[in-house]
Amino acid sequence: MNEAPIGVFDSGVGGLTVLRALVAQLPNERFVYLGDTARLPYGTKTAQTVTRYALQAAEALNGYGIKCLVVACNTASAVGLPAIRERFNTLPVIGVVEPGAEAACDASVSGHIAVIGTEGTIRGGAYQEAIRRRRKDARVSAMPTPLFVALAEEGLVEGAVAEAIAHHYLDALFTREVAATGRPDTLVLGCTHFPMLAGAVRASVGSDVRIVDSAITTARKVGELLVSCGAGEVDGGAEVRFLATEGAERFARVGSRFLGRAIAAHEVGLIDL
Amino acid sequence: MNEAPIGVFDSGVGGLTVLRALVAQLPNERFVYLGDTARLPYGTKTAQTVTRYALQAAEALNGYGIKCLVVACNTASAVGLPAIRERFNTLPVIGVVEPGAEAACDASVSGHIAVIGTEGTIRGGAYQEAIRRRRKDARVSAMPTPLFVALAEEGLVEGAVAEAIAHHYLDALFTREVAATGRPDTLVLGCTHFPMLAGAVRASVGSDVRIVDSAITTARKVGELLVSCGAGEVDGGAEVRFLATEGAERFARVGSRFLGRAIAAHEVGLIDL
Repeated sequence: MNEAPIGVFDSGVGGLTVLRALVAQLPNERFVYLGDTARLPYGTKTAQTVTRYALQAAEALNGYGIKCLVVACNTASAVGLPAIRERFNTLPVIGVVEPGAEAACDASVSGHIAVIGTEGTIRGGAYQEAIRRRRKDARVSAMPTPLFVALAEEGLVEGAVAEAIAHHYLDALFTREVAATGRPDTLVLGCTHFPMLAGAVRASVGSDVRIVDSAITTARKVGELLVSCGAGEVDGGAEVRFLATEGAERFARVGSRFLGRAIAAHEVGLIDL
Repeated sequence: MNEAPIGVFDSGVGGLTVLRALVAQLPNERFVYLGDTARLPYGTKTAQTVTRYALQAAEALNGYGIKCLVVACNTASAVGLPAIRERFNTLPVIGVVEPGAEAACDASVSGHIAVIGTEGTIRGGAYQEAIRRRRKDARVSAMPTPLFVALAEEGLVEGAVAEAIAHHYLDALFTREVAATGRPDTLVLGCTHFPMLAGAVRASVGSDVRIVDSAITTARKVGELLVSCGAGEVDGGAEVRFLATEGAERFARVGSRFLGRAIAAHEVGLIDL
């Protein structure tokens, strides 16, 4: 069991920011990463469709004999976790929403927390609920910021365009609406693409706002889970297998930026879901 | 045959700009519009995948007894037309690339033509080829502008963000690269989403560049085709049936902006491909 890989699933390459944190946290584990590139983006799709896709991805990864499943996609975590846990009831499943919400509740002093994500994540309300469940006093300002996904995918993470878009969204949360609702002291990056834009986000919100990246807290949770199951710490150096449902070349090219190391197109296996 | 509908196919709601031009050009026809919203965007997918999806969409529309098929998606037009024509060899099929290329060749005085589109459209080179086939002297500067799609989908078609993005892409074609390659006198909007951004594009390139929107020229081609087949001019007022593969509510909400008239969610039928 200890030598079994950890399955990581995302709609595309965004979840590679989570994989990056996992590899840093758990350098002796094996990973199988699946990006459902043929059907991304999940962020604009209905909860029903995203759940169906997530179940298919979990099924495929389960076929690799994984010891736990990390749902690295915020949208799929927000809407699909109950169905995955019901179907695969002996497999530990960790999403990114709960760890992100927990980190935000720990980080916030005032209890006023801002959350940004895709349309699907924000509309579904999973972050808002998870935060309020942990902190009854919390006030949550949530906003979809869909252009951030396109920006990160294109690698336009700094400069005039990134700054204009960051201001467009974040001024509404941190500047323009302040008079009415007060200024949040914490911002949750509720999409795996967004850590790529941390610089532009920081420049826009200023230095006093705490920025929560759920990739890091999720990786820590996975480490704790493996220790508690006695299923961790294979000795052999991290090993990653990449799977995608479409476009190995683009996965490798765009994904390299997200993972922070080069991926070659021939390393990416194509599968059908 | 005259009363049979015209099938219009796109990866999502972008093709509604083409449908809008078709309805204006052919106000007495019936239309069935299919947006493959479950699997958009096509622009980042491989030619093989886009061709497979386009064939499935053509099959579905053919089931509605259509008298001709308009492939309103630039990416699918660029890579999928030969396969569709081979499979449905008695059905007239019109894409948006050839009419756009023809209009650009007619509009350009200098023969230097810029084309913008999705990654898939530009990388596939169909516009570049179609222009050079018509004008041996043509010089084509092509550039993928993927953020334009996200901007149009979100309705952020004017203001600081749209202008920053338009300048980001178009300055490279019309200002920065001018010293090396000369300034194009014509710009083809090689994606059905882009007419939504015509204002920002115009502000960026200046008043002397001719902007070609293939929706209008495609609609004219379809009208000519129906006349030449004797299959046009049903008398009854335009009638449109909307089909999507996912998300009727979002199709209606975002699509209303593209079509220029309100679409209600209950008007959108969901089908599987």
